[in-house]
Amino acid sequence: MKPVCLVIGAGAGIGGNVGMRFAAEGYHSVLCRRSDQYGLDKLVADIQTEGGEATGFLLNAIQPDTIEKLVEAIERDTGPIETVIYNLGAQIGDRALADTSYKAFEMGWRIATQGLFRLASSVCPLMEARGHGSIIVTSATAAVRGNSGQHSHASAMGGRRMLCQSLNAEMGPKGIHIAHVLIDGAVDAPDTLGKMLGPEQFQALRESRGLEHDGLMLPAKIAETYLHLAQQHRSTWTHEIDLRSFTDLAWWNH
Amino acid sequence: MKPVCLVIGAGAGIGGNVGMRFAAEGYHSVLCRRSDQYGLDKLVADIQTEGGEATGFLLNAIQPDTIEKLVEAIERDTGPIETVIYNLGAQIGDRALADTSYKAFEMGWRIATQGLFRLASSVCPLMEARGHGSIIVTSATAAVRGNSGQHSHASAMGGRRMLCQSLNAEMGPKGIHIAHVLIDGAVDAPDTLGKMLGPEQFQALRESRGLEHDGLMLPAKIAETYLHLAQQHRSTWTHEIDLRSFTDLAWWNH
Amino acid sequence: MKPVCLVIGAGAGIGGNVGMRFAAEGYHSVLCRRSDQYGLDKLVADIQTEGGEATGFLLNAIQPDTIEKLVEAIERDTGPIETVIYNLGAQIGDRALADTSYKAFEMGWRIATQGLFRLASSVCPLMEARGHGSIIVTSATAAVRGNSGQHSHASAMGGRRMLCQSLNAEMGPKGIHIAHVLIDGAVDAPDTLGKMLGPEQFQALRESRGLEHDGLMLPAKIAETYLHLAQQHRSTWTHEIDLRSFTDLAWWNH
Amino acid sequence: MKPVCLVIGAGAGIGGNVGMRFAAEGYHSVLCRRSDQYGLDKLVADIQTEGGEATGFLLNAIQPDTIEKLVEAIERDTGPIETVIYNLGAQIGDRALADTSYKAFEMGWRIATQGLFRLASSVCPLMEARGHGSIIVTSATAAVRGNSGQHSHASAMGGRRMLCQSLNAEMGPKGIHIAHVLIDGAVDAPDTLGKMLGPEQFQALRESRGLEHDGLMLPAKIAETYLHLAQQHRSTWTHEIDLRSFTDLAWWNH
Repeated sequence: MKPVCLVIGAGAGIGGNVGMRFAAEGYHSVLCRRSDQYGLDKLVADIQTEGGEATGFLLNAIQPDTIEKLVEAIERDTGPIETVIYNLGAQIGDRALADTSYKAFEMGWRIATQGLFRLASSVCPLMEARGHGSIIVTSATAAVRGNSGQHSHASAMGGRRMLCQSLNAEMGPKGIHIAHVLIDGAVDAPDTLGKMLGPEQFQALRESRGLEHDGLMLPAKIAETYLHLAQQHRSTWTHEIDLRSFTDLAWWNH
Repeated sequence: MKPVCLVIGAGAGIGGNVGMRFAAEGYHSVLCRRSDQYGLDKLVADIQTEGGEATGFLLNAIQPDTIEKLVEAIERDTGPIETVIYNLGAQIGDRALADTSYKAFEMGWRIATQGLFRLASSVCPLMEARGHGSIIVTSATAAVRGNSGQHSHASAMGGRRMLCQSLNAEMGPKGIHIAHVLIDGAVDAPDTLGKMLGPEQFQALRESRGLEHDGLMLPAKIAETYLHLAQQHRSTWTHEIDLRSFTDLAWWNH
Repeated sequence: MKPVCLVIGAGAGIGGNVGMRFAAEGYHSVLCRRSDQYGLDKLVADIQTEGGEATGFLLNAIQPDTIEKLVEAIERDTGPIETVIYNLGAQIGDRALADTSYKAFEMGWRIATQGLFRLASSVCPLMEARGHGSIIVTSATAAVRGNSGQHSHASAMGGRRMLCQSLNAEMGPKGIHIAHVLIDGAVDAPDTLGKMLGPEQFQALRESRGLEHDGLMLPAKIAETYLHLAQQHRSTWTHEIDLRSFTDLAWWNH
Repeated sequence: MKPVCLVIGAGAGIGGNVGMRFAAEGYHSVLCRRSDQYGLDKLVADIQTEGGEATGFLLNAIQPDTIEKLVEAIERDTGPIETVIYNLGAQIGDRALADTSYKAFEMGWRIATQGLFRLASSVCPLMEARGHGSIIVTSATAAVRGNSGQHSHASAMGGRRMLCQSLNAEMGPKGIHIAHVLIDGAVDAPDTLGKMLGPEQFQALRESRGLEHDGLMLPAKIAETYLHLAQQHRSTWTHEIDLRSFTDLAWWNH
């Protein structure tokens, strides 16, 4: 039975590419996303075509009990969860305080912070019993600095970062590797950046900054770093790492 | 009509002392706490005895509409809110992940993060229209580093810190001063530390570290710094400041 | 005999204003600057006219033994050094790596880092013997983030910040208050900003951003915060504080 | 002609292991250390036995012109420097301020900060002309927080970190990858930790915390992460990463 890599938030960007990369490395990738059954099926099929193992689920992570039951089902039906990739973002674009509803503010927290807490509460006891496991969390610049219009996003991601540090302090010595990956730039991902911009503007951006310019972060390359983190020897673990294109200023420089 | 200093979380520690200090400086202090009508009345009476103005309210901040209606009522009945002290903590002591219920995790966020967001959403438009105002937020070590057992507290306070930075970025140029005060040590406060420890242990701690040792932070002295922040000239504002006793190591040293 | 406030770097900006403010509060201000005997004499005379006490010295801080002998002379001739303001900057403007000479790189360190180390080595034993004292260090954005063209400045200021934390950890419990003040914006100071820009450009900047716009930090207002830090009760000390104009983005936002 | 991996500070710990790992990957490793010709020769021979290419130099990095001439010689005689590992530490153990001589303070800066500046000044123009290259800097906890007794070490490492950020801001867009690797724990290295503790205490530590406990960081495993950094795609570069054993608290937790 292969070890499972569970990806929460597996679209065509970081999540999907990490699922592919881990499947190629011998994991059974369990891919979850909120919607788009077609895209999900295609991702699973692509992995299987390459000789990998994968399963897909549509999952509304903010609904009560969804994450919890998923973890139970995977452990029962698929295999032991060795690695979790928590890849749910909570970016809603820049919104002035007056335009940030209580609902939007709460939604950001439910997705970015509470969801990870529920996931960790579900998988950590299992990983602790086995003495090993890893939880890799995709994070964003907003986790380390608030900014105008980022009231919901930054507070959700900042809460998530402190949760990761708390999990790390308790779970590290029990053999569970918690890694917080600061994605400090735009990812060449049709499902997120592409949808936010619309197809034409996204294509224009790819032509001006992406493609051979390498100014958009390639999710398949990001996946290499996620794999490296999951494979680090336990005498030498990374808790926090940043990633950005060589063309981009670091967040502290702009 | 005096400018109002609204204190959310006005017990016998930082909140009450700040209320007293600002009243002595000419503000009308509006003091809110969740329970203890007697303590609240006494605080109001003490301020009035000293010649200051104060009003007290029992307020359950996590109930919907409580903060919102309070702000409305103050502006209508008492005066313009010039300064807000957001002094609600969300410390529940160290709890292992397995002992941190979903409810406790959510409660931490409601008190520490969402409450501040609701407050800011209510007062910022008023302050913006007047072109001035300040929001001073009491924070804790947990806002800058997660730790074992601090899953709820650290994620709530970390989210709060990033919210403060976001508010600062949007509201600063509009004349609203947002300050995040990192209280990095134990406060000599009977209502919080005292209750957590119980009367005997608290007294023992005061004798071993507090009193003439000055190893417990004196809330009346902390209030001086809050007043200084509220009075800083707008060409020279502080967003973040830390405070601890001279006997204590800074958080990054232990 | 009045307590001495020693200001290393006392031009017409922060240093001079701090000297004036502390003298008004009852300190004997000892003012040191590298050049401009006329400006120094005028500052001393201005303080004396206001009824304060002051002495001035021209001091080339990077020369061996200068700081050391100055401290000795003050303690012998003037009074006990209660507060030191270390206000030497090492900004040389933006220079590409290729344009940053070994000499400039070393000079930055000598002024910003080694000078503070020499000063602390000289005054800390005296303050420790008396059980009290404070060292307030003017710092800059470059202390917390390197940037293009800031190779010399940022590494000097970053080294200085870590030195301040080290001093704080050792000296705090001995009663010596170390404060690191992050000046995160342009100061309305003719001696530094004024000289860097030249008189016409400086005047234009004052008209567009300074004066009634309050977009340049007023050094007399900064001095209020320095005084507050020096007067904090030892149960409630600040180690790090940032300051900027309300019009400016915080360093993490640009 | 193979690309060169230049290791400044190549003892039996991180430096030597990185040299070995990069040689196995196809680099020509140029190994430099201050003393121990025998150890250096053995390291070179070990790499050659494994089929790799290596050259060794004794180098006193703080002497003027040593680094500069070395870079010239390598480029002339061996090959283009593709990667530099700057692995010189400046730890001198905990020393009270009174026991930290001016000489020790300066030495720390010369080794940790100025040496890197000189190296970067030498290799960056070469890398910039080629459009690619990487500089990976071994760093320590002291780079991010000063501590009692760390006056020299922390200020040197803190200056180095800000220098790395400055280099990154200028050189990143030119294709030069600057990575700052925070080694936040004890490394199982006979040359550094071993010498500091002495053979018996080092052996005792290995038995109590190292070996199968994995509580000492294995330098061969650290080398894997260095290699990963050097191989990251330029759309996805890491500037800062931390590493510690799973048994250890992160620096912000102790």
